[in-house]
Amino acid sequence: MKTLWIFAHPEDRSLNASLRDTGIAALREQGHQVRESDLYAMCWKPVIDGADFPRETGGRLRVGEAQERAHAGGGLSWDVREEQEKLAWADTLVFQFPLWWMGPPAILKGWLDRVFTQGFAFGVKDAEGNPRRYGDGGLAGKRATVITSVGARPSGFGPRGIHGHIDDVLFPLHHGTFWYTGMEALPPFVIYGADRLTEDEYAPYADELRGHLLGLPTAEPLRFRSERGGDYGGDLVLRAGVEPERTGFAAHSLGRAGGTEERRRYPEDGSGARTGMSV
Amino acid sequence: MKTLWIFAHPEDRSLNASLRDTGIAALREQGHQVRESDLYAMCWKPVIDGADFPRETGGRLRVGEAQERAHAGGGLSWDVREEQEKLAWADTLVFQFPLWWMGPPAILKGWLDRVFTQGFAFGVKDAEGNPRRYGDGGLAGKRATVITSVGARPSGFGPRGIHGHIDDVLFPLHHGTFWYTGMEALPPFVIYGADRLTEDEYAPYADELRGHLLGLPTAEPLRFRSERGGDYGGDLVLRAGVEPERTGFAAHSLGRAGGTEERRRYPEDGSGARTGMSV
Repeated sequence: MKTLWIFAHPEDRSLNASLRDTGIAALREQGHQVRESDLYAMCWKPVIDGADFPRETGGRLRVGEAQERAHAGGGLSWDVREEQEKLAWADTLVFQFPLWWMGPPAILKGWLDRVFTQGFAFGVKDAEGNPRRYGDGGLAGKRATVITSVGARPSGFGPRGIHGHIDDVLFPLHHGTFWYTGMEALPPFVIYGADRLTEDEYAPYADELRGHLLGLPTAEPLRFRSERGGDYGGDLVLRAGVEPERTGFAAHSLGRAGGTEERRRYPEDGSGARTGMSV
Repeated sequence: MKTLWIFAHPEDRSLNASLRDTGIAALREQGHQVRESDLYAMCWKPVIDGADFPRETGGRLRVGEAQERAHAGGGLSWDVREEQEKLAWADTLVFQFPLWWMGPPAILKGWLDRVFTQGFAFGVKDAEGNPRRYGDGGLAGKRATVITSVGARPSGFGPRGIHGHIDDVLFPLHHGTFWYTGMEALPPFVIYGADRLTEDEYAPYADELRGHLLGLPTAEPLRFRSERGGDYGGDLVLRAGVEPERTGFAAHSLGRAGGTEERRRYPEDGSGARTGMSV
């Protein structure tokens, strides 16, 4: 694999940083290529603003149009172009972050906002002028996986858990971002109870992560419906005959293929000392 | 009302900025107080990092703990304290932003990451030491509404639309953020087809927004289940007897109360010139 590892954690002595080091070493040992975007180390600018684009004097900033025009004319800022070059190189993306307010930290949200530009990642058309989205797009052919840590127990992120099912919590990334731009979403690696994990308990997590990563080349992606596969009408609504009773995010999923069993590891002792690596 | 209006759009000559001006003027005309956090104008720093906290020499940054300690000791950075002071003053929050990658722009995500600190917004306990979450919390007693613009048509964000139902798309904010910290989520105001809206079509949107805002004092909130209302077990999973067949985000909702009908306005002419105000 040619892997681009996007890392978004402020502390280099954290559980997440340890897992990153473990994971990247495991990939390289197996002969995979890895490039990194360590967003904190890069002092990544997360905010889209007028400085990102060449602008006509007095012109209004219309973000989508400005992105597309700048992309077409080579006028995107150097940091965005550098990330897009890495993306073009990679066949596999790893997004690693602690889950804050049910989503990626601002620095990673802003990497998506700025790098997945109109005309590059989305807003692209096929030869007949049809929009390429949801199963096709500027990043078609690539695969992406999320590695994320949460403080809660797995039960709270289960199908009827209070935080919402982890599949739904990650749906805006898996479906609204990866699948929307044409990428396949590979099963996520979720570390539950990350606040409680002690250093003694680290080894089995590291082993699981190695297994997850080395299995990526043959992993079955999450199966979502393609926009143009026949399930949706021209109004982008599921046709009446397609699982008529279903609503919610899950209606757009065809389920997980066999063998992509969900990880449910959790620190054995819920009262574990909080002196371990930070999340 | 004492309203804090949090605004996250990079362009002051945009549809969103026009709606903000219209909305704030309408509130003030009716005698409501309004304070603003215009995140772009403030050059808001969205990234949580070590500079946010007083740190012991050589200490690891553990974000949650560092937030709680800094909040208790008055050591949060001045910009975060200023926003928390505004929050403490307000009884009603308005979050206005264009929906990017199914969520708020990084600058607003980072406002949540940095301002909703542990010990202030969440991670607070009652007199018996029980955690106050989901229907209770550091921001209990306040109400919040989202105003957001999307490029797509309403059908794509309907119950079976390809982007996911707007109620699910906004669930991480409504439930995972507002409700989690004790706030009630008021119905959102969603502007569909925002890219296509022309200046001629602005007036009815402005009227609807005025109606939305002036109705907030009596608006029925979205109804979510309280963590401690009896529907969840100690594992934070819905008890077997509570709507046994339901999964997904909607399982945690008690539905919308009467009268909070969803807005479905959309520019009449889908091919409308794109020369209007930007989103």
